[in-house]
Amino acid sequence: MAWQWKEPEFVWFRDVSPRDGLQAEHVILNTEDKVRLVNQLAQAGVPRIEVTSFVSPKWLPQMADAEQVMTSIERKPGVVYSVLVPNPKGAERAIATKPDEMTVFVSASETHNQKNVHRSIHESLEGFHDICAMAKPHGITVSAVIVTAFGCPYEGIVPLSSVLELAERLQDLGISEIALGDTVGVANPKQVAQMVQAFQQKLPGIQLALHFHDTRGTALANLLAAVGSGASRFETALGGIGGSPFSPGAGGNLSTEDSVYCLTEMGISTGIHLQQLLSTTQFLVEKLGHDVPSKVFHAGGKMIPVNAKN
Amino acid sequence: MAWQWKEPEFVWFRDVSPRDGLQAEHVILNTEDKVRLVNQLAQAGVPRIEVTSFVSPKWLPQMADAEQVMTSIERKPGVVYSVLVPNPKGAERAIATKPDEMTVFVSASETHNQKNVHRSIHESLEGFHDICAMAKPHGITVSAVIVTAFGCPYEGIVPLSSVLELAERLQDLGISEIALGDTVGVANPKQVAQMVQAFQQKLPGIQLALHFHDTRGTALANLLAAVGSGASRFETALGGIGGSPFSPGAGGNLSTEDSVYCLTEMGISTGIHLQQLLSTTQFLVEKLGHDVPSKVFHAGGKMIPVNAKN
Repeated sequence: MAWQWKEPEFVWFRDVSPRDGLQAEHVILNTEDKVRLVNQLAQAGVPRIEVTSFVSPKWLPQMADAEQVMTSIERKPGVVYSVLVPNPKGAERAIATKPDEMTVFVSASETHNQKNVHRSIHESLEGFHDICAMAKPHGITVSAVIVTAFGCPYEGIVPLSSVLELAERLQDLGISEIALGDTVGVANPKQVAQMVQAFQQKLPGIQLALHFHDTRGTALANLLAAVGSGASRFETALGGIGGSPFSPGAGGNLSTEDSVYCLTEMGISTGIHLQQLLSTTQFLVEKLGHDVPSKVFHAGGKMIPVNAKN
Repeated sequence: MAWQWKEPEFVWFRDVSPRDGLQAEHVILNTEDKVRLVNQLAQAGVPRIEVTSFVSPKWLPQMADAEQVMTSIERKPGVVYSVLVPNPKGAERAIATKPDEMTVFVSASETHNQKNVHRSIHESLEGFHDICAMAKPHGITVSAVIVTAFGCPYEGIVPLSSVLELAERLQDLGISEIALGDTVGVANPKQVAQMVQAFQQKLPGIQLALHFHDTRGTALANLLAAVGSGASRFETALGGIGGSPFSPGAGGNLSTEDSVYCLTEMGISTGIHLQQLLSTTQFLVEKLGHDVPSKVFHAGGKMIPVNAKN
């Protein structure tokens, strides 16, 4: 495979640790700590934050305080605060809290969609139609995540053409921001480059984001392949926490710190202050009561020459 | 930074776990287990193996049985069995065991070379001159590793020009196989691509290999950037074990399993059978008595659809 490597000058990160990360944790953070996490991410310069999920507390007790979190955070100007909504009922709750963006999700494979949300892909899309109609009068953007876009734990390989077709159907609903999720961590850099390039060629109107899991250690290499193909939007989680409770074999999310460190060293801007971000990781680790996978959190971002310590 | 991505069809791995890996461990494997490790790596298809180090047992008691290991392994035809030699005295011991290759090492920065081997770079090169002269009549290749090639824990950034100049001096001694070591794990993918491309342009006669440490999570992304620049030789360690005892802040080596998995998924051949390799990791973990960083060892190489298990 040969292509012209061309990286963007700026990469936008959406940190999903307050939602995708915390929902996979056994420890439930209290509302105040969730609010501090979101506020500290914004202060560190993270331009997009997935704050919470308006899923039923029956399914995810970790997110039962979605309203309180959304109405207690400080809204830093310029930051996009988004929330996950599984259905029109969740969207109704979400809209009352005035998010900048609501995110819906659908699987690239029928089996995973059934197991995940007990609906067909077609039924999911019908729900999105209603959510888009509800969001419009409030000026709230609707974005989508296509989960299992690079492979499904039930169906195996997902053809690129299915992902493009599903994205086109989302675009027809008025959704132009789409994230592709490698839910179980089976994407490889070549597949990622091909996917990004296919979207650029066939669906240039879509603002594409990528969301990788580090199940097999490939997440940062996948981000790099996407960046080298011109992709500039990624979803990552502080500390590398996360993993889907409904996707067998899913590992943690790509870590925001490790991604920001690597891109910054490459001379690509992210607007994020790494040291401030690492202080936020320290806060998160204290509240979770366990260590996190991020390597840069442990090693530190900058190599400090040993002699300089003397 | 823009360049034409062009990956090789075949990538050669040298597994350094029996030497670079085991020398960083507190547990000392017995000779029989070391021999089994080397033989199993060869059986799994690893084409190049760093078997041991002929360093003084005073410095590295882990390698005190270097002669016994070298003379006890089965020599699989086609596999290159190499040994590390720190000086002419080590080379003399090594030659008696008939390795295919002897590897010498020198730091890209004076301070690290002094701290590592208590010699100036110039003095190290003088020793290599003698080692090359000793190796020649026996038909043994001498290769070199330039350690701290991407950054030094004492001096910080190492200029690309210094690395090229040192490589040229090694080439003048008759050493044409050179590995660049990111000893403390500070390389970034852009720097790696620039380094590989500079070698291709300025020193095309050198067979370049790269050796990454995953201190900051960038090792596989660095390998990918090198592969995309046309590099086809890497040094990795089974399980991702290793890290230099004499380099403050060094993390483990890039894992052979994770690298082979990723490249195989990309359609790049390595000649290595992943499942056999993972059985060898299982053996290594049992002998070391602790877990290893490799992600593919934990997740498995192939995504097995859940339904297939029913």
